[in-house]
Amino acid sequence: MTSATPPRSSRGPALTAGPQDNSVDDVMVLGLVSAFELATFARLAADADMAPDLRGRVMLTRSAAAAVDRRERLAARLVELGADPVDAMVPFTHVLDDFDVRTPPSTWWERLLKAYIGYGVADDLCRLLAGGLGERTRGVVLSALDDAPHSDLAEAELLQGSAGDDVLMSRLGLWGRRVVGEALGVVQGLAASHPELLRLATSALGPGDDTLQKLFGQLTAEHTRRMARLGLKA
Amino acid sequence: MTSATPPRSSRGPALTAGPQDNSVDDVMVLGLVSAFELATFARLAADADMAPDLRGRVMLTRSAAAAVDRRERLAARLVELGADPVDAMVPFTHVLDDFDVRTPPSTWWERLLKAYIGYGVADDLCRLLAGGLGERTRGVVLSALDDAPHSDLAEAELLQGSAGDDVLMSRLGLWGRRVVGEALGVVQGLAASHPELLRLATSALGPGDDTLQKLFGQLTAEHTRRMARLGLKA
Repeated sequence: MTSATPPRSSRGPALTAGPQDNSVDDVMVLGLVSAFELATFARLAADADMAPDLRGRVMLTRSAAAAVDRRERLAARLVELGADPVDAMVPFTHVLDDFDVRTPPSTWWERLLKAYIGYGVADDLCRLLAGGLGERTRGVVLSALDDAPHSDLAEAELLQGSAGDDVLMSRLGLWGRRVVGEALGVVQGLAASHPELLRLATSALGPGDDTLQKLFGQLTAEHTRRMARLGLKA
Repeated sequence: MTSATPPRSSRGPALTAGPQDNSVDDVMVLGLVSAFELATFARLAADADMAPDLRGRVMLTRSAAAAVDRRERLAARLVELGADPVDAMVPFTHVLDDFDVRTPPSTWWERLLKAYIGYGVADDLCRLLAGGLGERTRGVVLSALDDAPHSDLAEAELLQGSAGDDVLMSRLGLWGRRVVGEALGVVQGLAASHPELLRLATSALGPGDDTLQKLFGQLTAEHTRRMARLGLKA
C-alpha cells in the first residue's frame, strides 16, 4: 500500500494531492460554503418581503434563486466526491446563529451594511480556505464565490443612500465596527471548532503557529478596504 | 389599413390571430401568472424557514428558486411582446392579500392544504385563460404551469401525514371547504375587476352569458377531484 502512495510535500497534502487524497477537506469547505449559501437565500428572501417596491422585490427574489443555484453547483461537486450535500452542511448550519442574535439591524441601512460586511468576511474566508483544496473543488468554490453579486449591489445602494448624510455615515461607521467584530468572532469560533480549517488557510498565509493572527490580519485588511469604498472608517 | 387586417372569426381573435393581435390579453395573463409565481416564491421561502429539518429546508429553497425560474420564462415572453415584466404584474400583486388574511392556517397541515387547494385553483384558472391566448404565449404559460411540482409534493406529504388519523382528516375536510370558498372568491373578484379575463375563458368554456357559472363549475369539479385524491370530501 505505502509504495502506491505518492510522497507528500512538507506543506501538507492539500497542495499536491489529487481530489481523492484531500476529499475530507473538500467536503468540509464545500459544506461550509453551502451552509453560507443557504443563509444567503434566507436573508435575500426576507429582504424581498421587506422591499419597498415591486421592482426591488423581483430583483431580490432573483438573487435568492441565484444563491440556490450556487449551492446546487457545490452540491454537484459533493456528490462527485461521494458525499451527501445536506449532511455536509450539518456542522455549519448554526454558525451564524449567534452572529444574528448579537447584531439585530434596526434600519434597512444597517441590514444592508451588515450583509455587506458579513458576506465580505465570509467570502474572504472561503476564498482563503479554497486555496488549500484540490484543484477541481477549488475551481467550483471560487466560481461560486465569484458569481455572488451581493456586494456590488449593496455597495451601490449604500453609497447612494448615505451620500452627503454625515449623521447616517457616522452611525453606519459605528455599526460596521460592531458587525465586523462579531463576524471575526464567528471566524474564531469556527477555527476553534474545526481546527482543520485553519490548516487549509496556511497555503495562502504561509506556515507557522500564528495562522489565526495572520488570518485575522488579512480579513481585517480586506474589511478596511471594503469600508473605504463606502467612505466609512473601519 | 383595413385591407391588411385578416378577417376575424366569430369566435374572437384569440384562436386565430397571431401574437401581435392579442398581445394585450397575452400581457395580462402573463402578468397574472407572474404575480402568482411571485407569491409562490414568498410562500415557499417562508415554508423553508419553518421546515422541521435541514433536508426539507433545502428542498423548499429549491422549489422557491424554481418559481423564480418559471417567472423568468414568463418575463422573457413579456419582453418579446414589448412589455415590462414588472409593470405587467402590478395589477395582480394584491390579488391574494384578502385570501391570505381570511385563511390564516393554524397548523403545518392547514398551511400545506391551503397551498394545495389555492395553487390548484390558481393553476386551473390560468390554464383555462391560457386557452384564449396566442399559440406561443399559451405554450409558455402552460409549460410554466406544468413545471410546478408543488401539488405532487403537497399531496404526498398530506397523504402520509393524515393516513389513519380520522380527526385530522375531518378537520382538514372542513378547512378545505373554507379555503376553496375563499379561493373562488378571489376568482370572482378577478372576474369583476378584469372582465376581459372572463372573455378569454370562453374558448375553453364555450360562448354564452353564463361564463362565470361555467368557470366556477369547472374549478369546483377539479377541486373535488383533488380533494378526493387526498381521501377528503370537497
